[in-house]
Amino acid sequence: MTEPNVDDRLSQSELLEAWTVLSKSERSEGFLLLPRDEQEDLFLTVSSRDQALLVSEMSPVGMRSWIRFLAPDDAADLLQLVSHAVRECLLEQLDDATRQEVRALLAYRHDEAGGLMNPRFVRVRPEMTVDEAIRYLRKQAGHRNEMIYYAYVLDEDQRLLGVVSFRDLFLAAPEARVQDMMKKDVVTLPEDASQAEVSQLFGRRALLAIPVLDREGRMKGVVTADDIVDVVQEEATKDLHKFAAVEAFQEPYLSVGYPAMFKRRGGWLAVLFLGEMFTATAMGHYEHEIARAVVLALFIPLIISSGGNSGSQTSTLVVRAMALGQVRLRDWWRVFFREVVVGLSLGLLLGGIGLMRIVLWPARTTLYGEHYVMIAMTVACSLIGVVMFGSLAGAMLPFLLRRLRLDPATACAPFVATLVDVTGLIIYFTVASVILKGTLL
Amino acid sequence: MTEPNVDDRLSQSELLEAWTVLSKSERSEGFLLLPRDEQEDLFLTVSSRDQALLVSEMSPVGMRSWIRFLAPDDAADLLQLVSHAVRECLLEQLDDATRQEVRALLAYRHDEAGGLMNPRFVRVRPEMTVDEAIRYLRKQAGHRNEMIYYAYVLDEDQRLLGVVSFRDLFLAAPEARVQDMMKKDVVTLPEDASQAEVSQLFGRRALLAIPVLDREGRMKGVVTADDIVDVVQEEATKDLHKFAAVEAFQEPYLSVGYPAMFKRRGGWLAVLFLGEMFTATAMGHYEHEIARAVVLALFIPLIISSGGNSGSQTSTLVVRAMALGQVRLRDWWRVFFREVVVGLSLGLLLGGIGLMRIVLWPARTTLYGEHYVMIAMTVACSLIGVVMFGSLAGAMLPFLLRRLRLDPATACAPFVATLVDVTGLIIYFTVASVILKGTLL
Repeated sequence: MTEPNVDDRLSQSELLEAWTVLSKSERSEGFLLLPRDEQEDLFLTVSSRDQALLVSEMSPVGMRSWIRFLAPDDAADLLQLVSHAVRECLLEQLDDATRQEVRALLAYRHDEAGGLMNPRFVRVRPEMTVDEAIRYLRKQAGHRNEMIYYAYVLDEDQRLLGVVSFRDLFLAAPEARVQDMMKKDVVTLPEDASQAEVSQLFGRRALLAIPVLDREGRMKGVVTADDIVDVVQEEATKDLHKFAAVEAFQEPYLSVGYPAMFKRRGGWLAVLFLGEMFTATAMGHYEHEIARAVVLALFIPLIISSGGNSGSQTSTLVVRAMALGQVRLRDWWRVFFREVVVGLSLGLLLGGIGLMRIVLWPARTTLYGEHYVMIAMTVACSLIGVVMFGSLAGAMLPFLLRRLRLDPATACAPFVATLVDVTGLIIYFTVASVILKGTLL
Repeated sequence: MTEPNVDDRLSQSELLEAWTVLSKSERSEGFLLLPRDEQEDLFLTVSSRDQALLVSEMSPVGMRSWIRFLAPDDAADLLQLVSHAVRECLLEQLDDATRQEVRALLAYRHDEAGGLMNPRFVRVRPEMTVDEAIRYLRKQAGHRNEMIYYAYVLDEDQRLLGVVSFRDLFLAAPEARVQDMMKKDVVTLPEDASQAEVSQLFGRRALLAIPVLDREGRMKGVVTADDIVDVVQEEATKDLHKFAAVEAFQEPYLSVGYPAMFKRRGGWLAVLFLGEMFTATAMGHYEHEIARAVVLALFIPLIISSGGNSGSQTSTLVVRAMALGQVRLRDWWRVFFREVVVGLSLGLLLGGIGLMRIVLWPARTTLYGEHYVMIAMTVACSLIGVVMFGSLAGAMLPFLLRRLRLDPATACAPFVATLVDVTGLIIYFTVASVILKGTLL
């Protein structure tokens, strides 16, 4: 990558376009080449991780204007991503009031409602008239309140009584009282709600903002939909990574270093490999059978991959439905019943195709010998059993893991794969020993 | 499920709690049992699909108040989910102006920006003073404009010139002109942007609303973040389903009927199965080798599952990175180079573990014979080749599919699985024939 040329006047959009493929130092360099107004735009656009990277390279004086530029929740997000020394240095650059707000936010985990909220919101009192409320709103607009579409009605102890939208205020008679027009049935979040719960609630209810309350019902801040879109994306990416047995990460694929990439994939790959070794052990038990009927070996990959595919279908469906709150722990028997029926049907489908494939194959006697019909029956029956077992194991393991308070997404893929492969082999050779007894075995 | 008892006064939250596990008719019944204000709340909370279900059961008179209750974009979403007859009936219930708006929205696909936007937004003129603009805003608030945090500055031809937030207006001097204070550098969406592009933009830029423009730069509506959260979730769910080789669907898992579930899973499962049949064909070519050295068969499941796992890791990472816009078509060589290095390292890791497992296993000579070291070498070298091939195939196939304008998520899982399994077998037996020549083979 060549050094950006100052005379060519690098623009913010060019830099942003190339952002994901630039190295850390190239990002900093590019940023510093921009005029101030484009720097500001870019700074607000990039992720907290990138903001942290940019300020970490600056002098304390340079840091000052940037950390002050952010809303308290965004400042707190940034501070959680820098070293302890840089964090203290940045906190010193804030004015006293903001520093206190930011410190309060740092007490929350970054992935719970308290860590996602903005502590600045527009508040009004229930006894105010609409006219007073609007005047009060205009005054509060100066205090960098991020979101001012809703005004929250609080009592003296900061307990949330209701909410009014600006539209309601604009439409109401000036002398009407806020308490008579506010909506009392407000959707709220507890401050320790997890990121997944927050995303779920925003997904279910199309709301622009949800207030966050502590245990006593006092309002602590507001989570806004614009901050949640990337959280939802992040959650989904994490789930996708977990299903593919990769340790979840948030950085863009091309920004992850080789050692980190190796670690995140190698760990699970090794775990899966150790699990799959049981297949070698299981196969060891059937060495005699294979020696007597080598033809049996031909279908091993087909049988175990079918079990694996049906298992991964079901586990993905069930884990995702759990993540979206569509399936709860107590629904396990509904899922079980469904999967018995669907798994059996799918098994019959694949078994049928497998049977046809062997019986109708032109070179059947050369390849599979004179007992090809028996072989076909063995493969078909095994497929029914394996696909059904795969579906049931894929459906029930997430419930078991959830019951044991483990994350169903993380542990599911490896468990299902190993369990289904090993069990698939056992099913196959057991079926074979029954059907082929007296002929091939 | 027993009939809800009217005397027990079913509440909205109870009904909502049970919603996902209720049948269609139970939902309608429950809805009709609620008092009107709770009905209204519930109606706004549930998905368009559920709204469509609820109104489809009503008389034309009943429909009227509900379809009029919705913003035009939500009404259009609902109308796309009902039968032609019901749609016409519902459209007739609307007033002329809204009917026109809704018909204009119905011309868009429901998954493009035009179909996601609300055509009602707050507009001001550039030459207005702040005071005039605020008065004008208050007037517009009455027209059911869904989102009134931003006011859009349009010229006479409806071209977007800039945007002002309410906060800016409240803070500015009353006599200041809108054109002097508006932000001109507005992030916008073309009306035919796909749902995935809309989600990507909202994920990258934390914005509450993004205006939608036609080709001539005229503003047609606004997409708001609250409407996008569930779109992002839906996109992620679709991707997850595709990776697990399930035909993507949006209904909750428990609401999908058995035949539909069978169809969505059976189709891909059969395609995968047909692909995997090539493994049986490939194995057929090595029947002699297996007959001479049955011990080779023991490691087949281990080898092919390792290739499959590394392939699914890489393809998931690459496809997700593409979906988030982190990796573009022209980045293919970066990805290729990374995967050569990472794939080789991972192959060495698994190969090393495999070698140890066989060489150090107590019963090695009984299980694997006197040539167990040669067997171990065969397995280790094959693992290196298979894992590396799996990583490269998983990384490159998404680019190929994208290049061919196919959806990388849909087709990737089956292709990678089949390709890697068949190739894995060929690699294994080729390595075996080289290493074991003169001893076992």
